[in-house]
Amino acid sequence: MRKYGLHNRLVAHPGRRDALVQIMIEAAALVKDAPGCELYFVGISPREPDVLWVTEVWTREQDHQASLKLPRVRALIERGRPLVAVPPDQTVTDVVGGKGV
Amino acid sequence: MRKYGLHNRLVAHPGRRDALVQIMIEAAALVKDAPGCELYFVGISPREPDVLWVTEVWTREQDHQASLKLPRVRALIERGRPLVAVPPDQTVTDVVGGKGV
Repeated sequence: MRKYGLHNRLVAHPGRRDALVQIMIEAAALVKDAPGCELYFVGISPREPDVLWVTEVWTREQDHQASLKLPRVRALIERGRPLVAVPPDQTVTDVVGGKGV
Repeated sequence: MRKYGLHNRLVAHPGRRDALVQIMIEAAALVKDAPGCELYFVGISPREPDVLWVTEVWTREQDHQASLKLPRVRALIERGRPLVAVPPDQTVTDVVGGKGV
């Protein structure tokens, strides 16, 4: 079965990336036991000091949509939003296989 | 400890994406037990018919480098290369945390 993948490239305001990383790590801790959350991890770019990547795999798209309605997730999104400099670059994929999914 | 992440966006020649996906799934099967391979999964874009994403997390960059020297991995790279239309867009990240890493 194909799964629902998201590759989010976020650009923080200068000097705010680490704060945004902490929020996304909190988000991972919040959703890790949510139905259908298979992967949710955060990376930073060693070359671009304001950039972070959030990579998600959900069993179904609906599982991801449901997670966005959780009050504590919505609160985190509100905390993170002011730290983000430009609209997120989000790519949706159909995850077809491999190790870890 | 930070881990070594790779986000590879590949563009196949028209009509060859599925063949390239199969090669990358074979690659995942080859490296899944290689030292330090934590994640290696393949996604396709539902919106861009020639695009696939390969997402990797390795414990250390050296583990990834070592995998590229395995003869069977090199053979797969040679099989895949003619299917790729443009130089891969590869982003390196330092994976700092989350679920599944």
